[in-house]
Amino acid sequence: MKQNIYDNNKFFQQYQAIRVRENNYNNLLEQPNFFTLIPSLKDKVVLDIGCGMGDFAAYCISQGAKHVTGIDISFNMIGNAKERYIHECLTFEQVAFEDMTVPNGSIDFVSSSLAFHYIADFQLLIKKISTALCEEGILLFSINHPIVAANKGKESWVTDQEGNLLHYAVDNYQDEGLRTQNWLVDNVMMYHRTMSTILNTLIESGLQIEKIIEPIPTNEAVCNLPSLNKEFRRPSFLIVRAKKV
Amino acid sequence: MKQNIYDNNKFFQQYQAIRVRENNYNNLLEQPNFFTLIPSLKDKVVLDIGCGMGDFAAYCISQGAKHVTGIDISFNMIGNAKERYIHECLTFEQVAFEDMTVPNGSIDFVSSSLAFHYIADFQLLIKKISTALCEEGILLFSINHPIVAANKGKESWVTDQEGNLLHYAVDNYQDEGLRTQNWLVDNVMMYHRTMSTILNTLIESGLQIEKIIEPIPTNEAVCNLPSLNKEFRRPSFLIVRAKKV
Repeated sequence: MKQNIYDNNKFFQQYQAIRVRENNYNNLLEQPNFFTLIPSLKDKVVLDIGCGMGDFAAYCISQGAKHVTGIDISFNMIGNAKERYIHECLTFEQVAFEDMTVPNGSIDFVSSSLAFHYIADFQLLIKKISTALCEEGILLFSINHPIVAANKGKESWVTDQEGNLLHYAVDNYQDEGLRTQNWLVDNVMMYHRTMSTILNTLIESGLQIEKIIEPIPTNEAVCNLPSLNKEFRRPSFLIVRAKKV
Repeated sequence: MKQNIYDNNKFFQQYQAIRVRENNYNNLLEQPNFFTLIPSLKDKVVLDIGCGMGDFAAYCISQGAKHVTGIDISFNMIGNAKERYIHECLTFEQVAFEDMTVPNGSIDFVSSSLAFHYIADFQLLIKKISTALCEEGILLFSINHPIVAANKGKESWVTDQEGNLLHYAVDNYQDEGLRTQNWLVDNVMMYHRTMSTILNTLIESGLQIEKIIEPIPTNEAVCNLPSLNKEFRRPSFLIVRAKKV
């Protein structure tokens, strides 16, 4: 099932409000770690899946990419991206990756930041990415960490009577599939997969795991956003880099 | 620090009592999954690290291995193994792997079942294994799952007032290192490492991840040992197969 939550206007407005704040989890935790794993972009053909407002696609252009395609299912997102970034080597398209036709072996680098947990058929997704990648091509993606995604969309902190965090609770880790979460609006759908499912799916599709990051915030990041202290108890995100072999 | 808990006689007796029961986590959950990832053993040189009472080493001989060395730090374990299994192609040695000298590239298959979480220097361990393995050689090991190992050795179930399990609690996942656990006796030492540390250490040592299993019990296993139902909430073990490249 293809979910287009970013075209829910209430969601989109609230999402934008978070993203314009400098001190959010993306800017302080996910993006800095994601960036450490980006391959050389010079003369590369790049596909950014779930490109949102186009920032990363535009960054790839600034780093000398030959061509960058940013796709997103959301009309709001693609509209925004097209307004903000115009370049002859940059294309934005409103399409679900499942519906996109990509010539085999045509892409050097597939990137995706915090989008794959919205996609129901992970196996199909990765198979299609692997087919699209050229030999030695790189896939880099971030996703909600399985420890967090396992919970049915709830932030499951166990606290004492004063509200101090004692534990982070994992619910039904082995029970993969749909989770509905109330995040910004009700009933945002996302999919939980175990660590082994995520990694084995890559391997079985001909992608070799190169590096895994479960981001920990820097001291500076924690000063800017104290709630990041929670990250030491459990990881929010998982970042994986894999190579087509 | 090399821990030799199995030569604590109280621990060893209680451990043996668990192992002789047919319905334990090893027999119903860890071993069946571990066995699915064993490579062909015919004419192979095998090293089993933490061989315990020698069952797996002897199994490898029965499958046509050329030579099998079982090592264990425990005098009790090695004494038991030597009594139980005698074969010209089978050697048992009481030694910590850190202290063992293995010719480079001399081993086809390194196995280890639920021993690596006792070893303090994981990086050194994996580096040494990688050096000992021949090209295309296989490492197969099981270890306490990081979700479980993160807790300071406690079974951290959050229950309701009737004692029903609500959540499994993860404590300080990102805080790697020593955990002391009261399991059979007080102060058993083991080491928690995150999923990314475990997998990146393999990759950085020249081992390619081939498959990861977070075991789920079969229905039959749950009938034999109802507490295995907990496994659906969180995984106890992690099993990894990797190839020297």
